[in-house]
Amino acid sequence: MNTVRDVCVIGLGLLGGSVLRAAVASGRKAWGASTSVADAEAATADGFDARGGDGAVADALSRAAATDAVVVLAVPLTAVRSVLTRIEQHAPGCLVTDVTSVKAPVHDAARAVAPSVTFVGGHPMAGTAESGWRASTPTLFDGAAWVTTLDGSTDLSAWREVATLALDLGARVVPLDADTHDETVARISHVGHLLAAVLASVGAAGGPVAASLAAGSFADGTRVAGTRPELVQAMTEGNRDALLPVVDEVLGALGAARGSLASTGGLAATIRSGHDALRRMAEQRDAPTTPVRVRLDAPDAPEALLSIGHRGGHVTGFDGDVALADVP
Amino acid sequence: MNTVRDVCVIGLGLLGGSVLRAAVASGRKAWGASTSVADAEAATADGFDARGGDGAVADALSRAAATDAVVVLAVPLTAVRSVLTRIEQHAPGCLVTDVTSVKAPVHDAARAVAPSVTFVGGHPMAGTAESGWRASTPTLFDGAAWVTTLDGSTDLSAWREVATLALDLGARVVPLDADTHDETVARISHVGHLLAAVLASVGAAGGPVAASLAAGSFADGTRVAGTRPELVQAMTEGNRDALLPVVDEVLGALGAARGSLASTGGLAATIRSGHDALRRMAEQRDAPTTPVRVRLDAPDAPEALLSIGHRGGHVTGFDGDVALADVP
Repeated sequence: MNTVRDVCVIGLGLLGGSVLRAAVASGRKAWGASTSVADAEAATADGFDARGGDGAVADALSRAAATDAVVVLAVPLTAVRSVLTRIEQHAPGCLVTDVTSVKAPVHDAARAVAPSVTFVGGHPMAGTAESGWRASTPTLFDGAAWVTTLDGSTDLSAWREVATLALDLGARVVPLDADTHDETVARISHVGHLLAAVLASVGAAGGPVAASLAAGSFADGTRVAGTRPELVQAMTEGNRDALLPVVDEVLGALGAARGSLASTGGLAATIRSGHDALRRMAEQRDAPTTPVRVRLDAPDAPEALLSIGHRGGHVTGFDGDVALADVP
Repeated sequence: MNTVRDVCVIGLGLLGGSVLRAAVASGRKAWGASTSVADAEAATADGFDARGGDGAVADALSRAAATDAVVVLAVPLTAVRSVLTRIEQHAPGCLVTDVTSVKAPVHDAARAVAPSVTFVGGHPMAGTAESGWRASTPTLFDGAAWVTTLDGSTDLSAWREVATLALDLGARVVPLDADTHDETVARISHVGHLLAAVLASVGAAGGPVAASLAAGSFADGTRVAGTRPELVQAMTEGNRDALLPVVDEVLGALGAARGSLASTGGLAATIRSGHDALRRMAEQRDAPTTPVRVRLDAPDAPEALLSIGHRGGHVTGFDGDVALADVP
């Protein structure tokens, strides 16, 4: 099981395109297909093995089945179920991972429509407000956290293969269960997209003078509102169960600030909490780490791997059947 | 009245330091004073005419009175009233402007404690999350909008002198009344500081795993939460009257998103509004402009200047008694 699998990428936008570029750059054989003929043609023009259209996706999957390649699903969340259905049809039994920003619904879909495949969920914490093949780059994942999901029933040799792919693409691997992933991205990504959208709307309501005065802090706070709306909608709506309580936390904190401003005129609690929170997160990120080794054939290996992710650590590589990790 | 006045800067942090640097770079004679001995010593070490401590502020103001310099108030909002009191004492009758992010309360303070001075409010829309002399730079204001306030009773030759100083420092001048300024910065700056603080707190509540997964979009959305809390507190609390209704707009929009997510599961309205708003503001900023000339001795000059600001335009220079502007 130490062979390096070929990589079949379905979807050639920012993430899929970057996976294809980085996989080739790492020395893997890799090909891509997209229902977007434009993205596929752009990839071909850049020298990659890529084809576009519905037939192309089926062909790419059949080729993955023939070579036992790992299939990387890099389509918007709204298209995941239909592509999984086609994987079950054209590449049954394959190893499949994804790069979607929500994990529990993708796991549910895989169980429902692609029961024969071995699915290990993935999510690289990398992106820009740009999209499409033209925005893709082989270095997008350098140093980024790449969540790879597992639970007590996960085939750890399959998990290791997906983790190894993420490492080959330049990322650090964060083992997490799907629910912890979904709650965490609701906090550090999805609710931020909503706040950016609201801030943009409230700013624009100030008319031309607001557009004229808006400077760096407004650009920072609204940057992700420039992302393609259908992508933001798919990921936020797709994470509804985890996102709702986080939106309620934000409403509670902002409502408390509003009440304090209206009554005593004071905003110290809100502002100092935010400032302290940012410093605390920076300290956690910069904390010294201890090396940890997890034998993948040990009975408690899933718990040991999940504990690495929960404590803010990440897997840096493998030594045979042993995962090597750095943990704060 | 076409003499170029000397510049006396009180306060040598990010903004005051940058005013002193840019004023000297533009060829003006300029000196500074700060109650912070550390900032003043750093300025002196960098070759500027600066002194620190309480006596230094009084001396700098006496020198301004002797040379009829323009005094630039570059202290936090909470210190404005006490420095205005000292200006009235040491430099009565001087021309005074400021760089504070709220205008109506500063105007009120000037009328109350410094009735002899000619006060024209200012606010450069430039800054970073850094602070102190060490963060100052002579190019901070290059291309930035610099609001200079006026109303029907403003001495327009004094206003022109303050506007000319802002132009000399590299900025474009946006004429506005204090209330429009305060409402606009509540929309495009102050409420964003509150949202950044809340987002940072909600993110940090996700613990070490949130710190480990937080990437570019979280960094963008929380960047201004890194600003010194006392500065953010002073400007947001100081703009309470304008900020409260804007916070209510945000709560309304976010509450509507929450309701929609909980009931139908849909966030399209929120996300598309935000995306469209950002595009609309970019179009307004990039709109072609028409040159406009305003005679400062015309009876409707104040209205004509204010109209430039309200329409998203700015003053680019002066030709004798005529203000030259570009207006979308």
